Amino acid sequence: MNGEFEYIAWLCERTRPDPRMLLGPGDDAAVLRPPQRALLATTDMLMDGVDFHLAEVGGVRAGRKALAANLSDLAAMAAHPYAALVSLALPQHPPIPGLSTRQLAEEIDTGIRTLAEAFDLPIVGGDTNSWAAPLAINITLLGEADERGYVTRGGAQAGDWIFVTGPLGGSILGKHLDFVPRVREALALLAAAPLHAMCDISDGLAADLFHILEQSRCSAVLRAQDIPIAPAAVTLSQQTGRSPLEHALQDGEDFELIFTLAPDQAQRLLDHPPIPHLTPIGVCLPDLPPTLWLELPDGRRQPLPPRGWSHPM
Amino acid sequence: MNGEFEYIAWLCERTRPDPRMLLGPGDDAAVLRPPQRALLATTDMLMDGVDFHLAEVGGVRAGRKALAANLSDLAAMAAHPYAALVSLALPQHPPIPGLSTRQLAEEIDTGIRTLAEAFDLPIVGGDTNSWAAPLAINITLLGEADERGYVTRGGAQAGDWIFVTGPLGGSILGKHLDFVPRVREALALLAAAPLHAMCDISDGLAADLFHILEQSRCSAVLRAQDIPIAPAAVTLSQQTGRSPLEHALQDGEDFELIFTLAPDQAQRLLDHPPIPHLTPIGVCLPDLPPTLWLELPDGRRQPLPPRGWSHPM
Repeated sequence: MNGEFEYIAWLCERTRPDPRMLLGPGDDAAVLRPPQRALLATTDMLMDGVDFHLAEVGGVRAGRKALAANLSDLAAMAAHPYAALVSLALPQHPPIPGLSTRQLAEEIDTGIRTLAEAFDLPIVGGDTNSWAAPLAINITLLGEADERGYVTRGGAQAGDWIFVTGPLGGSILGKHLDFVPRVREALALLAAAPLHAMCDISDGLAADLFHILEQSRCSAVLRAQDIPIAPAAVTLSQQTGRSPLEHALQDGEDFELIFTLAPDQAQRLLDHPPIPHLTPIGVCLPDLPPTLWLELPDGRRQPLPPRGWSHPM
Repeated sequence: MNGEFEYIAWLCERTRPDPRMLLGPGDDAAVLRPPQRALLATTDMLMDGVDFHLAEVGGVRAGRKALAANLSDLAAMAAHPYAALVSLALPQHPPIPGLSTRQLAEEIDTGIRTLAEAFDLPIVGGDTNSWAAPLAINITLLGEADERGYVTRGGAQAGDWIFVTGPLGGSILGKHLDFVPRVREALALLAAAPLHAMCDISDGLAADLFHILEQSRCSAVLRAQDIPIAPAAVTLSQQTGRSPLEHALQDGEDFELIFTLAPDQAQRLLDHPPIPHLTPIGVCLPDLPPTLWLELPDGRRQPLPPRGWSHPM
């Protein structure tokens, strides 16, 4: 016996029974009770130096972020978390003085597991590896559709109001690590109103809204003065020289939700908001090809480029 | 638009409709029709320099191996492939002269997709990243249990015969890249006989059989002269000075199946073998703690250490 298998035994001991998990970690595959409604599946790989700086944030926050980003993807569909699988490529020499590879693995597991428990999510399997390169964490998250269905990026219609679930911008100052994925908020919204389209803000408000426009085949205009700006966007603005509004429009990893729904439903939602911080920021337009506009306080409209974070290839 | 999103658009175009896939790549999560029987889930991360040497094997074979290793895990449970998700951490400077990151991604996809099509498996989602480090490929594979159930590592019983599905050893000379995962063979075996326990050989025959013994709480003895030895084990033996038998017992990544079943069923299986290369190699014993023995041609038994490949931690 040695490192990898001892660690897997440690993981198995930490695994609690769950009615969704017929067979947990320790075999060639996990076995799950099949969900009754549609099965959702999403996967995210987070890497040291790209999605976090391990030497600065430590294993707990790196692990937490990896699961939180996946939960945010499920939230974007308004689905219920069902089970998670965790793969690690661990550095053989972690960039944290005095921390062994095994200790790093335990820290990452703690970060993941603490958040998983808060969302009643079993970790049913994974794969543990080490190499002479930086940390990579891959999580695959399975979900079950709500009884009301699920929400895609493709259902927005001309006339729809566009909402966000919280203030935006400057996430890099801390929120990108410690945000609470909007799983409960998404389900509360779906229970309150028929949502037409939704996605989470991972690339940036403009870029992610543009994903909705492309999938839904429509355009949109955002009202500059209605975009909720996070205090962090103001702080960051003082460092970058870019305006807080620019940060709110283009910064990635806010992990708030963008969604659209019909105007009458939107008004009802505002009359009885099921969650705090709901903010209408614009409307969908029938024009094609899909174009995103920003309406300034004086009424002028200017094109809003769907810039945001993307991996160079 | 830029690298990552253009590549995702290219992936979406390559994706064919599948009755299991209600919503494919391009949204925050894939949506699948829930399987009727138990849902299996397994994940494997393969890394350049550990599981393959990208500069030597190229993207197609690296991608193929990543999916094949996952399919082997499903085969080990005798389950049907259902859907796959693929995450890539792509090197910004691939170690292959003249090959761009985008071209490498396409090669990997081709390797994965060709094997997926051979196993009627839809690729329903993924995550594409790039970084200043070597290639890592993570695949999560979902499966559906057969109508006869699924086979774990935990069901072996004293008296069971132990089989392998093919000759072993020397996989590093090529088989570890080009093996055919034993998905169909596992299902044919399960249709022919009630299997008690099964796993695939990824760490090595001795190490993986020991996993079965630990989970099943029993011991086993292997007959040295009955272990089927691959020609590659003989070739490798000439380079290493270790015996072909040692290679067959301890080399990783043969990706054949080890399984056990009751003696009368074992005899029936040998009378009407549903697949070629079926070889009985030993029997399970009631002794505890779980111990693995090797019986030599002269009848003497010696302890067989469950050595095999493991990630140092």
